[in-house]
Amino acid sequence: MSEIRRDLVKQNWVAVASDRALKPNDFPIAKRDLGKAAAGGFCPFCAGNESFTPPEVAVYRPDNTEANSGGWTIRTIPNKFSAFELEGELVESQKGIYNTYNGLGKHEVVIETPEHGVEFHEFDQERVYKILTMLKQRYNDLARDERIKYIQIYKNRGMFGGASLEHSHSQIVALPFVPRENEGLPQYYASKGTCLICDMVQQECTEKERVIWETEDFVLICPYASRFSYEAWIIPRRHTEHFGQINEQEMDSLAHILLTYTRAMIDCLQDPSYNFVINTAPVNVDHQSGYHWYIEVTPRLLVQAAVEVATGIYINPVAPEISAQMLKESLSKLI
Amino acid sequence: MSEIRRDLVKQNWVAVASDRALKPNDFPIAKRDLGKAAAGGFCPFCAGNESFTPPEVAVYRPDNTEANSGGWTIRTIPNKFSAFELEGELVESQKGIYNTYNGLGKHEVVIETPEHGVEFHEFDQERVYKILTMLKQRYNDLARDERIKYIQIYKNRGMFGGASLEHSHSQIVALPFVPRENEGLPQYYASKGTCLICDMVQQECTEKERVIWETEDFVLICPYASRFSYEAWIIPRRHTEHFGQINEQEMDSLAHILLTYTRAMIDCLQDPSYNFVINTAPVNVDHQSGYHWYIEVTPRLLVQAAVEVATGIYINPVAPEISAQMLKESLSKLI
Repeated sequence: MSEIRRDLVKQNWVAVASDRALKPNDFPIAKRDLGKAAAGGFCPFCAGNESFTPPEVAVYRPDNTEANSGGWTIRTIPNKFSAFELEGELVESQKGIYNTYNGLGKHEVVIETPEHGVEFHEFDQERVYKILTMLKQRYNDLARDERIKYIQIYKNRGMFGGASLEHSHSQIVALPFVPRENEGLPQYYASKGTCLICDMVQQECTEKERVIWETEDFVLICPYASRFSYEAWIIPRRHTEHFGQINEQEMDSLAHILLTYTRAMIDCLQDPSYNFVINTAPVNVDHQSGYHWYIEVTPRLLVQAAVEVATGIYINPVAPEISAQMLKESLSKLI
Repeated sequence: MSEIRRDLVKQNWVAVASDRALKPNDFPIAKRDLGKAAAGGFCPFCAGNESFTPPEVAVYRPDNTEANSGGWTIRTIPNKFSAFELEGELVESQKGIYNTYNGLGKHEVVIETPEHGVEFHEFDQERVYKILTMLKQRYNDLARDERIKYIQIYKNRGMFGGASLEHSHSQIVALPFVPRENEGLPQYYASKGTCLICDMVQQECTEKERVIWETEDFVLICPYASRFSYEAWIIPRRHTEHFGQINEQEMDSLAHILLTYTRAMIDCLQDPSYNFVINTAPVNVDHQSGYHWYIEVTPRLLVQAAVEVATGIYINPVAPEISAQMLKESLSKLI
């Protein structure tokens, strides 16, 4: 079983797998093996290998196919190496000065395609639409469990994006507490009485210098304080707190925008490692105004060095005003 | 000039180089060029290439040699690509909803050896002692400027440690504000009336299960909430707030411990990328009790993935109780 331990100095939480002993050689960096499966290795996410994963919790597959067999389009499974298990209640324990929680929660993997080696930016729009629909469905399902307080949807692509398997997939972590990373949103609302993200969209669309793309439903910008070079945010114009509240028109539009933008970014940055993160409101807690869901797309061109880990201050060598210009140029070839 | 921009959502600071346009190909990850200099490329840190760096701000060199010529042992220079400049006063500006500071501060590089390709763990103890002495001297010098509020000393080693040059070096960033990363220390003191680090040392030395090494002056542990697999802290037993307050006996002892431990860690983890960070008290601010300097040694066996960047929750697949066991075993071969 895992524990969620409190870092008393930095006030972070750490999910510690207290029952596994990963040896230095077991780490993907040491093995440099992200590409192995493609070169003939074994991949548990490939069609035909369903029995090597835990049973699916949600799936898009034809009616005449059996669960956990081939034939599926998109498949959601529990993460085999999850630090979390949704069983019992959240229990805090004290060990001298330290405190820790049991690893209550859930960690799922959405396998985006049965085909190994086809990447997100190579999918057709229909598949991207279905992936987003699956993510929305899982979000809303997981939010029904009152023990869950925050749902983090994300994608790691490439060695420097933290991916440990090459086969295209997204992940969902459902946590028993609200991480403090987005606390600026309710705080801004409490002090100004307006939504930070709405105010940001208004200022960006007036100033234009960090805007990559404006559509009817979404605005794409390089944020003013971009932590990563060429970081972009995809923001829905409609003020909605939860990703799970996205409507049909927005979903259609998002599938188009996310796919097109990813292709432009891949072209502009010459096939980088990257992450997607869906930033959304907490669930099953007292309502706080000021949340507004949006997607962060962060290319990983630099490794976070000691100064960033130690101080929490990011150093970004490319101004977002310049990034926006370059990303816009690549995008203009596609739209 | 650079700007320090406030991330309103995450409440981080981002140092943005607003006058440079690093192209995707300029990033070390794209070039994979950390080894180039060794293979015949040009290295500005090598003896003989002093004119390619900014003039030295501190140096250990024989009396009969000229500044910025060869013959030195350890050499401190301003970081050529610094995001910070120590000129004028800290000025906040407001741009609509955003706020930003000028890049007031200093960023220095300590070149640890004139010889390219000799790594920290290959130095003799005398050199490590001198490096630590140089770092102490720079710390105390920089702390004299009242505009500086926090001094971060660190080392990036290897591609996954965020190093951009292979030649062995440490770095010092002097910041105009106190990052919030260590706020747990004064908070613990305020609530308990004792020092968290002292209490931690006491509990660890009683429980023993996370202790790697106990000496007269220092204790080495894998911290209870280790963010990184095989993370270790080197803690002075004497309660001292600032690294600059280290005394002669401790310095001698630290040179021995740091060198020996690094060799053990390199052996245990098969030559990983890693970081050193010296965690110390703020300077030139109202005194707050509870700080106690120590060194974090963090191997970088995994890339920080989206979930960690997005939520601030670290996932550590190796329990510190197991890490401590393995590191201790490697250490036992050396002491």
